Amino acid sequence: MTALNETHAPGLRSWVPAANLPGSDFPIQNLPFGIFQTADGQPPRGGVAIGDQIFDLGHGASSGLFDAAAQQAALAACADSLNPLMALGQRAQSALRLALSRLLQEGSAQEAAARGCLVPMRAATLHMPVRISNYTDFFTSIYHATNSGRQARPDNPLFSNFKSIPTAYHGRASSIRLSGTPCVRPKGQTLPKGAKDPVFGASRKLDFEFEIGAYIGVGNALGDAIPLANADEHLFGLCLFNDWSARDIQSWETQPLGPFQGKNFLSSVSPWVVTLEALAPFRAPAPDRGADAPPLLPHLHTEADRAQGALDLRMDVLIQTEAMRRDGLAPHVITSPRFADQYWTTFQAIAHHTVNGCNLETGDLLGSGTVSGPRESELGCLKELTVDGTQPVRLPNGEQRAYLEDGDDVIFRARCEREGFATIGFGECTGRVVPAKN
Amino acid sequence: MTALNETHAPGLRSWVPAANLPGSDFPIQNLPFGIFQTADGQPPRGGVAIGDQIFDLGHGASSGLFDAAAQQAALAACADSLNPLMALGQRAQSALRLALSRLLQEGSAQEAAARGCLVPMRAATLHMPVRISNYTDFFTSIYHATNSGRQARPDNPLFSNFKSIPTAYHGRASSIRLSGTPCVRPKGQTLPKGAKDPVFGASRKLDFEFEIGAYIGVGNALGDAIPLANADEHLFGLCLFNDWSARDIQSWETQPLGPFQGKNFLSSVSPWVVTLEALAPFRAPAPDRGADAPPLLPHLHTEADRAQGALDLRMDVLIQTEAMRRDGLAPHVITSPRFADQYWTTFQAIAHHTVNGCNLETGDLLGSGTVSGPRESELGCLKELTVDGTQPVRLPNGEQRAYLEDGDDVIFRARCEREGFATIGFGECTGRVVPAKN
Repeated sequence: MTALNETHAPGLRSWVPAANLPGSDFPIQNLPFGIFQTADGQPPRGGVAIGDQIFDLGHGASSGLFDAAAQQAALAACADSLNPLMALGQRAQSALRLALSRLLQEGSAQEAAARGCLVPMRAATLHMPVRISNYTDFFTSIYHATNSGRQARPDNPLFSNFKSIPTAYHGRASSIRLSGTPCVRPKGQTLPKGAKDPVFGASRKLDFEFEIGAYIGVGNALGDAIPLANADEHLFGLCLFNDWSARDIQSWETQPLGPFQGKNFLSSVSPWVVTLEALAPFRAPAPDRGADAPPLLPHLHTEADRAQGALDLRMDVLIQTEAMRRDGLAPHVITSPRFADQYWTTFQAIAHHTVNGCNLETGDLLGSGTVSGPRESELGCLKELTVDGTQPVRLPNGEQRAYLEDGDDVIFRARCEREGFATIGFGECTGRVVPAKN
Repeated sequence: MTALNETHAPGLRSWVPAANLPGSDFPIQNLPFGIFQTADGQPPRGGVAIGDQIFDLGHGASSGLFDAAAQQAALAACADSLNPLMALGQRAQSALRLALSRLLQEGSAQEAAARGCLVPMRAATLHMPVRISNYTDFFTSIYHATNSGRQARPDNPLFSNFKSIPTAYHGRASSIRLSGTPCVRPKGQTLPKGAKDPVFGASRKLDFEFEIGAYIGVGNALGDAIPLANADEHLFGLCLFNDWSARDIQSWETQPLGPFQGKNFLSSVSPWVVTLEALAPFRAPAPDRGADAPPLLPHLHTEADRAQGALDLRMDVLIQTEAMRRDGLAPHVITSPRFADQYWTTFQAIAHHTVNGCNLETGDLLGSGTVSGPRESELGCLKELTVDGTQPVRLPNGEQRAYLEDGDDVIFRARCEREGFATIGFGECTGRVVPAKN
């Protein structure tokens, strides 16, 4: 487990003023990585968010601001994806974080040189941070599993394997896009209630799923399992992830092979990747498994994972409809899940994924599955919030939503907060629903 | 649909003697693509199989043997994967095929120059032909679906969506390897019969699945469906595909999200990719859908697909156990499926995959799912052949196989045969089962 070090010190302040504002997602304790581009014709390249600025890592490397280990990482980050940096491993990444923390803090002797490496965020275009190799979606929330299972099987909501296996399925990597990409309402086959034969058309049950995405840094060779005790060495960082879902397409196709076209039309990731090291102060105990749980098999159990495998991350889903935008109404929070409620930890997911010898690769994305908690205010998708559309969510202007409608903006936010530590934000993952193509 | 042309003429013979031998997989009418390497230190590069030789496309390009269109394709094939060639589209690929056919046929004026581009297959190492971007596995055999469904649900073997949707799930691209890669028996969780809690250990139900793999050449943009009428323009070619499966791991994990660790430890592809153009003489009518079938929704129906969407391809699975090798016994054919029996065509699979806007990419692999026919001698996996291990297959030396045992070689072969045309072979896709790692 990553130890706390000087980069986490709550008293650290940056000479970038916006980094110190209360509510900033990007204080000097965060330093998330992304890929950005400026209008000057330079290609997309790696940067680090600090307040309302981006620190250009290539510029930093060519300015002689880094020691050898940090320089190696900064040079790797000059590519058009973070993959080369991710593949380097945590030692080099950590050296770069330490160097950046020292450069960007108040009183740094190198402030003047470092200032020359800043690009205002508003002047930059953000790109996909990671070239995603393979995408796997887990199913780690017992509340999500139970709530969605109950709709299909009232007598048997939770399958008997749920408490033994961090269940997962492979998802589609090619259709993962950056936050801000419009979500075109997908078409597909659905079986209308009571109908004998399916019909073809635009989905009428378009949903979001608020997940946390985990990026693999260093992978494993085919045939070599990653032990749970080492799983954190393979995790580069986390992002916000919207696994857009067409529930009517999904429910008709899902037997016997699981979700496919109900999911693979689009998924969205946030632009900034928050490193595991930045999140060290917010590690939390994995939740109690329940009195009726079977014993954890050895490859899914370590004391450290029980004690610190979860992450205390609070999440918000906001909706802003076309009418709300027209009337100048701000996006409205409809639900606020907590990532620490997930039954299975991210590290258990990595250990499970590889225990049969399956190889993870740099740039793989593991979705947590929908993050849902025990309370109604903590459910991570509309299928749960509205009980499959039968109990619509009410918005402040009197509008209701059973499922998403064309024109709706879906906005995800998340932050780690802990008394005595700086708040770490994830930025946003957004998308607007647009009508199906003719 | 690809028309017949001079490259398919049955009378064509090559000046490479082995290409003309009866039973050769690689006559001049085939010309499949692969990636090979020689011991002289040159990097892996593209080649075409002809008899017992490989035609080195880079060497051909630098020898001035091609016209402009063929030259463009040959240069694209100089890479360490076929992806750049695949991305070029069928016009350039077809020009290269025509040029090769003319170069390699008896009487070619350029025989002497072309002879300098040949590498004996036995002197070459074959590599993965394609850098696989995304892998999707379909479920297109109604016999496989019914037989395997019956084992889980005797009263309801075939789900109600089978005849409406070419069902599929996303698979793992990272663990797809070249034919010849040993299959390490995977470990995982299984629920022993009658047990309350699962156990962890090596799979005891290791199986093969004989599938046909379809490689996407030119993809589609996110949001743009590929109409069934154009689907063949996106299909580069076919390969043999072994979707190794651990049935005990699979059956415990599969609800509700489908197969995952029971599949993702390894899949194997054959080294040679047979182009759609080479297969033109063997296109066949799609099978009758059955009297009780719902109407095909429009995006899954064209007259041309009904008339020519299937492929008359005969397949064999051979087993050679350790004892058989020791005693000098040849591999034994245990089953012989026919690809033309698949309920859904490869083109329907492409149209379905993209109808919701999901983007296919150059190098995507679509597995057909297990190919099984109506007869016992046509079942494509041991789970069906042995009824989940309860009726073992008998081998000529008296050995039996319920599932695969350590030391077993699994060998797939396939060929297209039609009166009046040269036989087109696919080579082999092989793998030996080796013990689980400690």
